[in-house]
This record gives sequence, C-alpha cells and structure tokens, in this order.
Amino acid sequence: MSQLIGACVIAQSGGPTAVINASACGVIETALKEASITAVYGADHGITGILNDLLYDMGKEDPAEIHLLMNTPSSELGSCRYKMADPEKDDRDYKRILEIFKKYNIRYFFYNGGNDSMDTCSKVSRYMESVGYECRVMGVPKTIDNDLFGTDHCPGYGSAAKYIATSVAEVSRDNRVYPTGSVCVMEIMGRHAGWLAASAALASVCGEGPDLLYLPERVFDKEQFLKDVKAVYEKKNSCLIAVSEGIQYADGSFVSEAKTSATDGFGHAQLGGLAAILSEMVKQELGCKVRGIELSLLQRAGAHLASQTDIDEAYQAGSEAVRHACAGITGKMVGFEREYIDGKYSCKYVLLPLDIVANTEKKVPAEWITEAGNGVTKEFIDYALPLIAGENSRPVENGLPRFANLKKVKAEA
Amino acid sequence: MSQLIGACVIAQSGGPTAVINASACGVIETALKEASITAVYGADHGITGILNDLLYDMGKEDPAEIHLLMNTPSSELGSCRYKMADPEKDDRDYKRILEIFKKYNIRYFFYNGGNDSMDTCSKVSRYMESVGYECRVMGVPKTIDNDLFGTDHCPGYGSAAKYIATSVAEVSRDNRVYPTGSVCVMEIMGRHAGWLAASAALASVCGEGPDLLYLPERVFDKEQFLKDVKAVYEKKNSCLIAVSEGIQYADGSFVSEAKTSATDGFGHAQLGGLAAILSEMVKQELGCKVRGIELSLLQRAGAHLASQTDIDEAYQAGSEAVRHACAGITGKMVGFEREYIDGKYSCKYVLLPLDIVANTEKKVPAEWITEAGNGVTKEFIDYALPLIAGENSRPVENGLPRFANLKKVKAEA
Repeated sequence: MSQLIGACVIAQSGGPTAVINASACGVIETALKEASITAVYGADHGITGILNDLLYDMGKEDPAEIHLLMNTPSSELGSCRYKMADPEKDDRDYKRILEIFKKYNIRYFFYNGGNDSMDTCSKVSRYMESVGYECRVMGVPKTIDNDLFGTDHCPGYGSAAKYIATSVAEVSRDNRVYPTGSVCVMEIMGRHAGWLAASAALASVCGEGPDLLYLPERVFDKEQFLKDVKAVYEKKNSCLIAVSEGIQYADGSFVSEAKTSATDGFGHAQLGGLAAILSEMVKQELGCKVRGIELSLLQRAGAHLASQTDIDEAYQAGSEAVRHACAGITGKMVGFEREYIDGKYSCKYVLLPLDIVANTEKKVPAEWITEAGNGVTKEFIDYALPLIAGENSRPVENGLPRFANLKKVKAEA
Repeated sequence: MSQLIGACVIAQSGGPTAVINASACGVIETALKEASITAVYGADHGITGILNDLLYDMGKEDPAEIHLLMNTPSSELGSCRYKMADPEKDDRDYKRILEIFKKYNIRYFFYNGGNDSMDTCSKVSRYMESVGYECRVMGVPKTIDNDLFGTDHCPGYGSAAKYIATSVAEVSRDNRVYPTGSVCVMEIMGRHAGWLAASAALASVCGEGPDLLYLPERVFDKEQFLKDVKAVYEKKNSCLIAVSEGIQYADGSFVSEAKTSATDGFGHAQLGGLAAILSEMVKQELGCKVRGIELSLLQRAGAHLASQTDIDEAYQAGSEAVRHACAGITGKMVGFEREYIDGKYSCKYVLLPLDIVANTEKKVPAEWITEAGNGVTKEFIDYALPLIAGENSRPVENGLPRFANLKKVKAEA
C-alpha cells in the first residue's frame, strides 16, 4: 500500500445525533496526528460545503474545544440533506468536488452520516476512481435509527435509546401518581424501523417501562390497539404506551397522517402528530385522562444523557476510519461487531463495503417482537442493554452544558 | 413548649416534581430519629389516604430504599387533587381525619405540596385547634411553578428549570443544523406564572437559549409575535421560541384554547396543544419548516437532571418541618430565604404562616421582563442561576435509573 500525502476533509450529513460530534472528534484528532495528512478540513453543512468551497481549517482550532465535541449534540460542522445524482447520469457535482479536492490537494474524504451519506460516499469513491484521482473515501456511520445494514448497531443509537428508556421510566412513575387513572402515549422517532421505539422497553429492566409498545415492523390495527389499552387500563388504572412514529395501517398509510378523527369529521389534517392522534382515539374509547408526549428532537439532541459506551464507540469509528485510510483502505464504512469476552460486551471494529450499507435497511427482527405485536422479547433487551451502559462525564459550567465552540476559520488552499 | 408524644403522618399532593420525594425523605428520615415521634406513616395518595384509612408504616421500610427517594421522581406515596371544604361550612372530612388521627395517635401532620396543599394544611390546623386535639401541622412546599408566596423559591423549581435550560440548549444546537432554515417552538408548563418558561433563558448563559420568550405575565399579541419571529428568522435563518402554556390574548382567553387556525376555519378544537397552534401560525406566515415541542411531563419528572441544590434544599425543607414541629411549632410552612455569603448563594430556612402562602400567587416581576415582552432581564438570570447548580449523583444500574421501591406495608393502629 502506497503512502498517500495530502489533506483530508470531514463532512457531516443527515439528522444529527448526540454523538455524531464524537465521531468527528475521532476523525479530527486522529487525522491531526497522522504524518501523511497535511491538513484537516471540516466541510460546512456536509457535501454542500465542498460544492460551495466552504471548508474550515481544523488545525486552527483550540484542541480543547475540539475535544469538547465529545459531549456536544447536533452536527457542529452543520448538516445537509443534499441528494447527489448518479455520476454516470449527471457528473456536474462530481466535477465540482474534484475541482475542490484538487484545489486543496484533498486525498482523504470522511463522510459522517447514515444511509444516504454512505450512498454519497460510494458514488464519490467510484467517480474519483473512474477519473484516476487518488483519494481514499471512508464512511463513518451515525444514525439514531440503528437501521444501517451490516453493522451490529450504529453510533447514536445507544444514546438515543438511553434517553428514551430513562424518560419512559420517569414518565412511567409520573403517569401513575393520581388515583384517578391516566393513559400516556409516548411518540418515538423511527419512520421505517422500530429500533428506537423498542428501546422504551429497556425501562422494564428497572421495573418501569411501557405497558404496550408498537413498532412499524407490524401492521397497526386500531381495534386491537384499543382492546390492548382497555385491558391494561382496567387492570392497572393506568397505561403507558410507547409507539414509533412510523406505524402504518394494513393499507400502508401512516397512522400519523390519518386525516379523520372522531372529533373532526371534515378530513382536516391534525396538528400535533401521532401522539395526539392516538391520545384522541383512546380518549374517545375510554373517556379517561390521556396525555400524548412526542420526544421529538429531545431524543436525538440529549447529549446530557448520552451513553458513554456510545460516545466511545462513535469516537473510535471516526478514529478507525482515519487509520485505515492512511493504511491504504478506501471505499469502506467502519462497522461494529459485537463480542462477549468472559460474558462481558465488547465492540470490534470492522470494515464494510459502502454499497452494501447504502442500499439496505435493517429492521427489528420479527422474532424479537412478541406474538401479540405489542412488545419485544428478552432477545431485544439483551441486544440493546449493553449499548446504553456508562454514564458520561460531560463538562458543566454553572449547572449548564459546556458545548464546543469552534472558531471555524475558512481554509485557504 | 411541651413535648408532644405521638405518631406522624406525611402526605403528598398536587402535581409531582423531580424532588418532592427528597422532601418526603427529609421528613421520614428525620422523624424516624425523633424521640417524641412514636411511628412514621405515609398516607396513600395525599389526604385521601387519611380519609380512606390507608397509611403505610415507614418504619417497616428498608432505610436504603427510603434514601433512594432522594433521586426518585413523581410522588412515591401517590398524589391527589382533593379539595377540602371549609371546616366551618362542612366538617365531615375533618371529623374523619380526627377519627383517623385518634386511631393512630397521630400528633404530627406534614403535608408536602403546593398552594392547595397549604390551604388544606391551614384548614386542618384550624380545625384541630378548634376541637382541642393537639396536633402539629406543618407544610412542606413543592411546585415546579415556583409561584408560592413568601418564599424566595420553591423546591422542585430548580430541577425543572435545569431540565428546561439544558433541553433548550441542546435543541438550540439541533435547530440550526441545516442550512435550509428552521423555527422551533418549545412549550413549557406554567398556567399562571412564567417562572418555568423564563428558565429557558438560562441557556443563554452557555451561549444558547431561546431567541424569543413569552410569559403569561404579558398579554400575547399574535401580530407582534409573528413580527418578532420574522425579524429573528430573517437575520439568523433560524428561530427558537420558548413559550409558557399559560399565555393569553388581551381578552383573557388562553392561546392554547384558540378554536380557529388558518388551516381549519370550522372552529374545531386543535389537538396537540399550544406548541402545535403557534407552529401552525408561524408556518402560515413564514412558510418555513417549523417544529413544535411540548416538554410535558418530562420537565417535572426529569430526576436524572435534578439540580443537587434543589435536592438538598427539598430534603432540608422536610427535615426542618419535623424538627420545628417537635420543638413546638405548628401551622407554618418551611420557606426559603436567599443569602449571599462572600458573594456565594446560600439558602436559609424560615417559617411562614400557612394562610398567607395558601392564598396568594407569586408571578415573575414585571421589571424582570424586557420592554419588548419577549425576553427576561439579567435580574432573572441572577435569581435563577444558583438554583440549577450542582450535578446530582443518582444511582444507576445497567445504564438505567435506580428508583426507590417501597414495600408499603399497611399501618396498624
């Protein structure tokens, strides 16, 4: 493997997580130490920062601020949702990227994102190869959705899962506080895969947790749902429901987009999302107090509750990407493999082909969902529990989080 | 002051907080050590547990479990919203309470709650005195709303404020992550007083925080609101709005109960609350991406982020109530006075007459709200910042909270 001398660029893409910046930190800190890497740039708002020639020089940042990325939520370099064309069909963006890569002598490209980002990585890699520009392209995964194919789990998932399970445990106590009875519906992110909603069930490990749990992997049946809720409520005088935003009726339509509710027969779109819709359904059926809670951005931005396991693995994913690229690897994503050493969970870092990761979505296995379709099995708990382990020691000032504040000095070629 | 030998009962009431159980812990642990207290009972679901003769014997609990109340959210003994009649008008409940007090020889009554609970305390105290039954009645305050009169602040407020300010800081970063622009409306509890919503402004201390803030102390003007949002959005390409659920139009109607929106001219009640209503308003006006987040129960149940200052003060409030009662005091609530010793915040415990506390609501002072009515001044920050200080060291097992699990052994007379 030849040594390749040149600059590197890292870009972040897609919905942020509590630890995507820990991955960036892993890339930046490792790259700054690599002899073959001459400069470390961060692209503003993902691939668009490259297209717009807006790169920041990470060598000009205070190293202490860079390290604060370990506990800083959102994507510090900015994100984007820009979909690139196939280079075979329309190569304008790729020509522009090549131009910028040449301008800064960029020989390493690290893209920190989910499915779409791995797709972008894969296309850029193919294009650079086709035009004979030597550049090593590596994917650094992130997604709270945990739906990337080929990897045991994804950085970002463990922290969101910990936030969800902890919040469910706390709300579970609150929801039973009055003798008058109460139902609570907690809406959790996950449009196509139920990994996040399933993590609500982790609260059962501390004796709390949802009574009922609905994932998009199973068809949602309104009648059965109301029967389930009624049965729990009649027994316990309370019911806590965790539900994925992506649940669908048998015809494939999203429950969250249902146009008609019992209070409104005119077909007006409801404000307030799925939690409000299901709450209204339950209220109509049981006539009791019902509250809907949507975890919304809180679940992916909750860095204060990030799992230390997740932070460490996210950092390591970034770091491994740099080390492998410098050793000659290209066109791969860093993936995770689970090992149990003396019965103790441990994470092994592996390399996966970008194109496999890009085009397949991993769902919660059917056999991990209970027969009744309103809960998960012990196999899921055993899978997810190690990922939420470890309390982080985030820096706090005046009782408030101390996030990274990068200077973002524009790079010069 | 005579020594009074007998049992004590503690009851919890109203909406729970992250630290109301820390106050209960203060009462129970201190009472268990007091020589003049013969037994320590916890009433099931507030005053209704006394009316229903359902008391739990705290002496039969594992002391380690009792101490876990320090980090357990919700009201572990259960809460109620039972409104007692004036004893002068209808004394049936009071006769029943007297009967139960006599049955268990209860000579000390500690009521842990907000405005209504202090009212109940006051009435029970008056009644017991009028019938010549010697019983010392003490109020132990709690409310995330921070609206109790006479006390500098209330236990529960600091923890909710810390949760809100931290969540606002995190969401603030996430809300600016895309170059495409975004507005986010965060709905915060507080029907009549804006203390909680104002705490969102604490995030400004770490460089984040809401761009705009609306409290119920000021009349809500829709046109001005939209003008404010537009101005911020045009300048920053994003806007974070924190708003109290209790904001009202000039005619006194709650904005959250507005029947008509731009999408629905038929006057149907909106699902999803104030955040959804304001989001829709902004979307109509600016046409940009808008997200509404309601902090709902999360903000009062978030024990994982409870302020250690708040936990300590809540405990102390309970403990002081017991010690003063044993020393002969009755008919008082433990209140807080702020001191600065060498410039450092410190809390002094004082005794306040129950009836003053019960019937007055404390609002955010007009001079702490900016002239434009969309923010708070430095005076508010200086007031609230010490209350969110201190990271708690809650017990965690398997990455999940370890809450108290009381056995709740029914008391025997």
